[in-house]
Amino acid sequence: MKTDETMVNAFVPGRAKLSPEAEAMVARRTRLLGPAYRLFYETPVHFTRAEGCYLFDAEGKAYLDCYNNVASLGHAHPHVLAATAAQAATYASHTRYLNDVVLDCAEKLLSHFPPELSQAMFTCTGSEANDLALRIAFAATGGSGIVVTENAYHGVTYLAAGLSPSLGAGVDLGAHVRTVPAPRDTASFAADVAAAFADLSRHGIRPAALIVDTIFSSDGVIPGAFLAPAVKAAHAAGALFIADEVQPGFGRTGAQWWGFQAHGITPDIVTMGKPMGNGYPVAGLVARPEVLLPFGTKARYFNTFGGNATACATAIAVMEVIETEGLLAHATRIGAELAAGLRALALTHEALGELRQAGLFLGQDVVENGQPSAQKAARLVNLLREARVLISATGPKGHVLKIRPPLVLTSAQADQFLTATETALKAL
Amino acid sequence: MKTDETMVNAFVPGRAKLSPEAEAMVARRTRLLGPAYRLFYETPVHFTRAEGCYLFDAEGKAYLDCYNNVASLGHAHPHVLAATAAQAATYASHTRYLNDVVLDCAEKLLSHFPPELSQAMFTCTGSEANDLALRIAFAATGGSGIVVTENAYHGVTYLAAGLSPSLGAGVDLGAHVRTVPAPRDTASFAADVAAAFADLSRHGIRPAALIVDTIFSSDGVIPGAFLAPAVKAAHAAGALFIADEVQPGFGRTGAQWWGFQAHGITPDIVTMGKPMGNGYPVAGLVARPEVLLPFGTKARYFNTFGGNATACATAIAVMEVIETEGLLAHATRIGAELAAGLRALALTHEALGELRQAGLFLGQDVVENGQPSAQKAARLVNLLREARVLISATGPKGHVLKIRPPLVLTSAQADQFLTATETALKAL
Repeated sequence: MKTDETMVNAFVPGRAKLSPEAEAMVARRTRLLGPAYRLFYETPVHFTRAEGCYLFDAEGKAYLDCYNNVASLGHAHPHVLAATAAQAATYASHTRYLNDVVLDCAEKLLSHFPPELSQAMFTCTGSEANDLALRIAFAATGGSGIVVTENAYHGVTYLAAGLSPSLGAGVDLGAHVRTVPAPRDTASFAADVAAAFADLSRHGIRPAALIVDTIFSSDGVIPGAFLAPAVKAAHAAGALFIADEVQPGFGRTGAQWWGFQAHGITPDIVTMGKPMGNGYPVAGLVARPEVLLPFGTKARYFNTFGGNATACATAIAVMEVIETEGLLAHATRIGAELAAGLRALALTHEALGELRQAGLFLGQDVVENGQPSAQKAARLVNLLREARVLISATGPKGHVLKIRPPLVLTSAQADQFLTATETALKAL
Repeated sequence: MKTDETMVNAFVPGRAKLSPEAEAMVARRTRLLGPAYRLFYETPVHFTRAEGCYLFDAEGKAYLDCYNNVASLGHAHPHVLAATAAQAATYASHTRYLNDVVLDCAEKLLSHFPPELSQAMFTCTGSEANDLALRIAFAATGGSGIVVTENAYHGVTYLAAGLSPSLGAGVDLGAHVRTVPAPRDTASFAADVAAAFADLSRHGIRPAALIVDTIFSSDGVIPGAFLAPAVKAAHAAGALFIADEVQPGFGRTGAQWWGFQAHGITPDIVTMGKPMGNGYPVAGLVARPEVLLPFGTKARYFNTFGGNATACATAIAVMEVIETEGLLAHATRIGAELAAGLRALALTHEALGELRQAGLFLGQDVVENGQPSAQKAARLVNLLREARVLISATGPKGHVLKIRPPLVLTSAQADQFLTATETALKAL
């Protein structure tokens, strides 16, 4: 089986010696799931249980989760589990009958957005949310031209994969898609966006949308406050601005619920997913009503499972936990501790280059002689896996450690991560 | 708010007088969810609870469910709820770590398919499954041309909506999509498929796939055994055959697990969804390995929630119930009772035209002077709603009653449906 070398931290069969048990599981997986699935790590991990910030392997050994943002409230959060189970046992049906839960969920979700974003739609995955956002943008603009960043990831539907260059050269970009370099500074990013839309127009393709992950996760984690002029350039070209909050959303960046808020902008559409159900498949978007209207006037939208009562009760419970446990403030505090710890380690470990951080989303460059080193980043990721701490790497050069623990990470767990990282750096 | 008149059994605001409570809920819905959502019925129903074959409105009144195929084992099935809750509390993570549950689920699922279909992939929705199946077909054939039936429905992603003419003229079909009339007879359907692929080739578009719902749900419910020559025509054109089993799958047609089996064919890819989790969002596809290989060689596939352990434990529980409760035989028996009852009613009620039935999927034509009557079908659907029995209508002319109860419908409940239908026919 060929393995896609464009995926950072992918298991490559045959490269490392596996235990007989792991070897058998990998073989069974390939036989049953085929060639398109990928595992993490040089030697994949077999998990059977998870709770809070820990995953447990088949032998019961605990791994500290500093990577998975789906279980953002911690794995198996009791309040969320109870809400899901209670609603599933009561009423789980779809949006073509009247039911309060989907409306309560929409209302609660919208309460965390600026008032201009006043309508919500529900899907099951972030991919579906981005796919739907683009259908809405096509209807609203009459265009089809899309601008994304060079190493963007926006999902796995045909349309979303076609604007996700991070999936590698094996996945064709759409003919109506243009890429711009990830932001280096405010002015050049806006100029690049304007030029990309001009290029689309020059090819007779009417602009429809600029879509970006507001923390540029797959481009290497780039928090900041530089999007306003780019949004202005998109609007000047007749395109909408779609904020993909699937990764930065729901308090990940600490200071606010959504990544776009750091940029002082109000998007036309905001998409979300991953942590929205803390593991239950629920996703969606919010939008300005005037942006939704052209789509809703000519098309209907029904997603069988999207907006079902169980999904919505689960999402309500997730938002309740973020609010009642004060997770934004907590993420801000623990994120700062992790950042301070990494900066301290960087003083004595030259492999640690620039650190970019917002709340509990950290991108730590790994360098060798000051140059990006994907090889050292991969080594660190795998050394940490041996030390039973889970992170991954990202970025177009694969040299950025992607550190994205559950929002409920404690100070003691942050210390555990930093101690393990120090040990790994020494072994590098 | 404009309402899409192409949707059968859609609520049209302002047409019927609602209770103040319903009026307020509809207004709240429009305010929060925007213009793209649709409700069922002249006067929408507000449900708050569901169990077995009944949904309960806000006043506690029970409605017999003869429509919803998601809760195919009955709403809130205890074995499924328990499996979901137990797995969610134990381990719910994704496919990039090794875990047995996704493999056990794939193995069990594949055991219900011919041996040629030996690999499974997991998504969250039927739309995602069809979208992925087409990406796989594009990679396997090098083509992009798709043939569907005239009133097909295959989902709501950009790609799937573009090959779903039943969504109405407001949703553009893809430029690489051709439609053929729904099957009237075996030979003409195959000839139409061959002609559609020839037309694609004549326009320089390489054929990729024939995709059909194997019971042609949105084309009016057309069970039969006529697909083999059409599949041969697709293969002769270099295209794959994709069986969309989102509606007919998991025992709906009684005699077998999948609709395609009645046709004596083995598809290249089979997609599935709706009843797969009895309400939990889980969907997927199975395929021939040689068909998956070109896609898996050049692309990776990761769906954050697709194949998560909770989804897979839920799907396993659903398959267990179908097996242990003997639901295929049960659906065959109750389906025959419903069909016999409707045929008896047709003897004295000329509004009942042709009946098409397989297991617990029935399409009952409603006619006036022998001609299709969408108006009478709608009246019957709404009279049954007043009698607290849920069905809907379908077909390109909207005149086909769509009767699709949970597989666990009892004889007594079948009688309840038939009695209510007789009363409605008398009031027509």
